[in-house]
Amino acid sequence: MPDHISKQFDLELETIRTRVLQMGGLVEQQIQGALDALASGDIARFDQVIVDDAQVNALEVAIDEDCQHIIARRQPAASDLRMVITVIKTITDLERIGDEASKIARMGKVIHSAERYQTPRLREIGKMAEAAVAMLRRALDAFARLDATAALDLAEEDRELDDDFSAEVRQLITFMMEDPRTISMSIDTLFIAKAIERIGDHAKNISEYVVYLVKGKDIRHTSIDAIKRELGQSV
Amino acid sequence: MPDHISKQFDLELETIRTRVLQMGGLVEQQIQGALDALASGDIARFDQVIVDDAQVNALEVAIDEDCQHIIARRQPAASDLRMVITVIKTITDLERIGDEASKIARMGKVIHSAERYQTPRLREIGKMAEAAVAMLRRALDAFARLDATAALDLAEEDRELDDDFSAEVRQLITFMMEDPRTISMSIDTLFIAKAIERIGDHAKNISEYVVYLVKGKDIRHTSIDAIKRELGQSV
Repeated sequence: MPDHISKQFDLELETIRTRVLQMGGLVEQQIQGALDALASGDIARFDQVIVDDAQVNALEVAIDEDCQHIIARRQPAASDLRMVITVIKTITDLERIGDEASKIARMGKVIHSAERYQTPRLREIGKMAEAAVAMLRRALDAFARLDATAALDLAEEDRELDDDFSAEVRQLITFMMEDPRTISMSIDTLFIAKAIERIGDHAKNISEYVVYLVKGKDIRHTSIDAIKRELGQSV
Repeated sequence: MPDHISKQFDLELETIRTRVLQMGGLVEQQIQGALDALASGDIARFDQVIVDDAQVNALEVAIDEDCQHIIARRQPAASDLRMVITVIKTITDLERIGDEASKIARMGKVIHSAERYQTPRLREIGKMAEAAVAMLRRALDAFARLDATAALDLAEEDRELDDDFSAEVRQLITFMMEDPRTISMSIDTLFIAKAIERIGDHAKNISEYVVYLVKGKDIRHTSIDAIKRELGQSV
């Protein structure tokens, strides 16, 4: 980022970046909390995840307003403007990840309150979720370090997560066919897996905004090979 | 919107608004196409929906760039800036609606190619989808006419659509339990219903951006009563 005559402007840009990472950390906590509670059946933990979502939502609105004040007062151009736009887009995806985490928490609450201890494949789902959390962490890290190359890894990881999700759906279908009494519980697991798959999509989106921020090029809706070319890597 | 010294600026703002509505129309066509093909089994129609998604994605990127040029060159303030920010957010939701439409088309192709004519409850799903399309149409209309009050209707309609989705899931579970051979097909229907439910969420988001655009207030993450108060309606 260029150095500004106005140190105040630098400070404002630095502040919104810091707040995005703070918001990201909170969202990461939400997912982790939902996963831990899913494993332990800790209902209070589920409730905490749901309560924290209000804080995530409030952060989105607050950072959004900061961005608009910066645009109106500072009239940023070039990379500064890209930073502000990137933040506006990133917080939308972070907020939606928070929504998915609360969905998981709400479903987990139902599962454990109903003492559906045989809810199938929660352990396997946990592995998918760890991959999604790792993707989010990597996307936030790329945003913090302005690392455009992470987008490539995330595109590939997102493809793997999508494959894992499809495999999970097939497994659950087999499971339900073998024992129709598990259908209702299997559908709960299915929706939790779906929420995790979406978290991966949002993490991928964030990494794509970082490429736009660093390279000034929009790589959304492009192939992995096109991203490689954009990053000057051999295809 | 205020009248500008620069007629060129007015023209630029008018142009992005028009392009958003054009993009919205295309997305609406995608959903409608996917639904018609789902009813008729017209595979070519499914393919068209999937092909059109590239055009929707390209429009998102193009409008996004227009918005950033306007911010950089025109340094908009107040309601002009809100309009540009609203467009940036709206096209993100439109693009994701397009994604859901192609998902429906891809799933529909699988269903009909496999000649799974007994895929359950597609007719009921069609009704849900019509409600979602109506929500999108209303949200775009609110954007075109700068009508903040539509957000209230859409918040209520989205709640109804979510209820319909939950009811549909329960129906499908019953269906699968009665005849486990339908499990795989029922899961297809379930994912189509899920995609439709998300289209409603995105339409609701768009109507909330319009409130922000018109009232300068962010009503995301607020209750229907809070929205009523915001719109000066009695609770």
